[in-house]
Amino acid sequence: MIRLRRDVRAEFTGAVVDDDVLLRILDAAHRAPSVGNSMPWDFVVVREPATLRAFAEHVAEQRRAFHESLPAERAATFDPIKIEGIVESGTGIVVTHDQRRGGTHVLGRATVPETGIYSTILAIQNLWLAATAERVGVGWVSFYDTAFLTELMGIPEGVKPVAWLCVGPVREFQQVPDLERFGWRERRPLESALHWERFDNRD
Amino acid sequence: MIRLRRDVRAEFTGAVVDDDVLLRILDAAHRAPSVGNSMPWDFVVVREPATLRAFAEHVAEQRRAFHESLPAERAATFDPIKIEGIVESGTGIVVTHDQRRGGTHVLGRATVPETGIYSTILAIQNLWLAATAERVGVGWVSFYDTAFLTELMGIPEGVKPVAWLCVGPVREFQQVPDLERFGWRERRPLESALHWERFDNRD
Repeated sequence: MIRLRRDVRAEFTGAVVDDDVLLRILDAAHRAPSVGNSMPWDFVVVREPATLRAFAEHVAEQRRAFHESLPAERAATFDPIKIEGIVESGTGIVVTHDQRRGGTHVLGRATVPETGIYSTILAIQNLWLAATAERVGVGWVSFYDTAFLTELMGIPEGVKPVAWLCVGPVREFQQVPDLERFGWRERRPLESALHWERFDNRD
Repeated sequence: MIRLRRDVRAEFTGAVVDDDVLLRILDAAHRAPSVGNSMPWDFVVVREPATLRAFAEHVAEQRRAFHESLPAERAATFDPIKIEGIVESGTGIVVTHDQRRGGTHVLGRATVPETGIYSTILAIQNLWLAATAERVGVGWVSFYDTAFLTELMGIPEGVKPVAWLCVGPVREFQQVPDLERFGWRERRPLESALHWERFDNRD
């Protein structure tokens, strides 16, 4: 069992990411591959302090609800884990998906319609890695109610919010994921994820 | 309108990716972030020629069905576009998702359950970029019937196939996406994807 530090300090420096760096990161996201070249994503950059605070308060409520749903041992492990840096990162990027993008005949989406939303997620990982290369940290917040975020961002019918990303300069990058460091969940070894020729063949 | 070359040559060299390179690529995929550190993905590496051929034949049928669904102008644009390199790449990686991974209380998945499948897609983009860095090409084939792939791979109940990736050494990397080069669909400029503070604010 990992020894827990209870005094976890914030990883975000408090500085706001420079606009030119932010645009390079968004450009990398926007260069992701997408089904039928549909590029079905949008990015809302949020820096208004009142908006960041409103979202952070909503997330704090959801965090409490999750905490209350846990058995005692899990709740104790969860306590010190940082789940958001909404205000301190200074910048939120809300990523949305529009399945109507790409017109009537989307090449490659006819048999597997989920490849639309998958494309938007590929863009998020491009964003994440490009940010890391710029020494900018990214935290994906998923402790929210989708209806709340939709309303907060004024997202219209037919567009789906898929992520709130906290984006900002960080002091350091951890080498071990937080949830592993804090004893929430160990990693799986690669071998356990590999199969050969068929799913039921592990050798 | 881009002048189309009708004699598109295969981009895969026909050589099979080395095992050590393949394992580095899979290791990069496996290091993707995931909700609650659940690591809900699996990878089936397929090289058996009979399996590659069976999948390629199935995809060829789906291609024909898509072609027939198109209006004449779109069908003509679609004709020269390469949609798979299943046999010639020599290696398929079938990526699957298991939402049960991570146990009962998945940190961060309580309010947005889709973050499970999103995690698996982040791993695919890690795989794609790691492969590119190794000069290995990746093509994501989505012209298939999910039930067919499930049966072909012996994927059990509760596990969802999400992608067939053709992975192999390539002669060159195109600078312009194929669907843009062949006039299927132009790219959107980054500006059209950016919003400020709220979705309805484009300035």
